[in-house]
Amino acid sequence: MTTNKRLTIVFIGAGNVATHLSAAFFIAGHNVLQVFSRTKESAKQLADHLNTAWTNDTAKILVGADVYVISLPDNCLSEFVGAIDFGNSLVVHTAGSIGIKVFMGRAENYGVFYPLQTFSKLRQIDFKNIPICIEANNSGNEIILKNLAADISDHVIKINSDQRQYLHLAAVIACNFSNHMYSLSSIILEQKNLPFRLLKSLIRETAMKASDYHPVEAQTGPAVRNDQNVIKKHLDLLSFSPEIRQLYDVVSQDIIRLHQSGST
Amino acid sequence: MTTNKRLTIVFIGAGNVATHLSAAFFIAGHNVLQVFSRTKESAKQLADHLNTAWTNDTAKILVGADVYVISLPDNCLSEFVGAIDFGNSLVVHTAGSIGIKVFMGRAENYGVFYPLQTFSKLRQIDFKNIPICIEANNSGNEIILKNLAADISDHVIKINSDQRQYLHLAAVIACNFSNHMYSLSSIILEQKNLPFRLLKSLIRETAMKASDYHPVEAQTGPAVRNDQNVIKKHLDLLSFSPEIRQLYDVVSQDIIRLHQSGST
Repeated sequence: MTTNKRLTIVFIGAGNVATHLSAAFFIAGHNVLQVFSRTKESAKQLADHLNTAWTNDTAKILVGADVYVISLPDNCLSEFVGAIDFGNSLVVHTAGSIGIKVFMGRAENYGVFYPLQTFSKLRQIDFKNIPICIEANNSGNEIILKNLAADISDHVIKINSDQRQYLHLAAVIACNFSNHMYSLSSIILEQKNLPFRLLKSLIRETAMKASDYHPVEAQTGPAVRNDQNVIKKHLDLLSFSPEIRQLYDVVSQDIIRLHQSGST
Repeated sequence: MTTNKRLTIVFIGAGNVATHLSAAFFIAGHNVLQVFSRTKESAKQLADHLNTAWTNDTAKILVGADVYVISLPDNCLSEFVGAIDFGNSLVVHTAGSIGIKVFMGRAENYGVFYPLQTFSKLRQIDFKNIPICIEANNSGNEIILKNLAADISDHVIKINSDQRQYLHLAAVIACNFSNHMYSLSSIILEQKNLPFRLLKSLIRETAMKASDYHPVEAQTGPAVRNDQNVIKKHLDLLSFSPEIRQLYDVVSQDIIRLHQSGST
C-alpha cells in the first residue's frame, strides 16, 4: 500500500470488473464496506468473498463512504447515477466507453477508474501490470484516484474521456476481435477433428511478438506477402462456411491494403 | 537428443523457418552440411551462423545427405522439387499449405516437417512447445521424422496433408488475422497519440485466456453482449477510416452470429 490512507469503498455492481477490482482493493488494505447488485445472488456472492455486507436495494446503499465504484453495464449506468445521492463522496465508474460527463450536475466529486483488461470471474488477475486509466473532476480527486490506482497497479495513467473512448475501441479490436479469430480457428479445426490446443503456442507467441515489437512490423502470412495462390486455396477450403469465408476475404484484403499502402 | 542417430542435413532455403529450424537441429547435435539459397547473402548469412558451407547454385547442392529440408516460398517449391535429384535421401518440405503429393514421382523418400509457429529472424524461439506436424511416404521415413522432430520438440504429431491444409488455414486466422487486429488498434491509438504499449497486458491476457480455456467461452465485449449502443458509438468514432469501420462492422456482426446461433 502506498502513502494513501485506508479508504472505505462501496461497490455498485458485482460483475467481472467489480469482482476483480474489489478483491484487489481488499488485498491492498482498503475497506470494502458493502456490495450492491440488482441481483441478490451476485451481491451476496461477492460480499461473502470479501467478508462484507451486501444489498440489492438502492435505498439501502450505505451513505458517506470515501469512494463509490460503479461497475454496471453501460446501458444502466446513466440511469443509476441519476437515481442516487452521493453527497460529498467521490464516485467513479469503470466503463471505457462512457465519458466523465455522465456525473455532471449529479455528483460533487467524481471521476473515472478504468482498468484496461479483459476480466473473467473464474480467472485470477495480477493488477500490477494492468494500466489503470484515471480521470477526475478536479486535481484533489485526481490525487485520490492516482493513489488508489497506485495501490494496485504499477501503470497509472491520466486519460481524458475523449482519449478513453478511442482506447476502449482499440481494446475491443485488439482483445475481442482477436479472440473471435481464435474462435473461428477452433471451428475450422473441428471440421477435421483437430484439437484447438494445437494453436496454443502459436497464439501466445503471436501476442508476445506483437507486444514486444509492433504488430505492423511483426505481420507474417499469405496476405502480407500478397500470396494469392494460398489465399484462393483457403477461400476454397472455407466453402463449408460462407460467413467465415467472407471474413477471411475482408481481413486478407485489409492486410494487403495496410501493408501495401505503407500508411504506417 | 533422443536415440536418433546424428543426421547430415542440407537446408534448401534460408528464410525465417530455415533459420530457426537449422539452429534447433544444430543445437540438438545434428550436422547441417550446407545451406542453399537463391540469394547469396541469405545463404552466406545462415551458413556463417551455423559455421557450415553454403551455395546459391542448385548444381552445387551436396548429394547424399541424410535429410534435405526445403523451406522455400510456396510458389517456388514445386518447381524446385522437380529440378533436383534427391537420390535415396529423405526430402521434406516445411509448408503448411502444400501437400505431400508435391514429391510424388520426383523423390523416393519424402515427407513433410511442419512446425506450427510464426517465425521472425531476430526473435528467439523455444521449439520445445511448438507442435511439429509430420507426414511421410512410408513408415520407415515416418520414424526418422518422428525422431528428428522429437529431438527439438515435446509435441510431435502425425498430421496428413488434408488435415494440414485446414490446420494451416486455422493458424493464419489465429495468428496473422489476430495480429492485424493489433495493427488496427495501433492505428486507432495513433489518432490520439496514445502508445501501443497500453494494450500489451490486454493482448497477452487475451491470448493466455483463450488458450487456457476455449475462445468461444472466453469471449467478452460489446458484440457478444449485442450492445448496439457501444457498437454504434465505435462505428461513429471510426469515421476517420472507412476500411477499419467496415471491418469493425463485419467482425462485430460475425461475433453476434456465432454466439447467438449457439453453433458451438
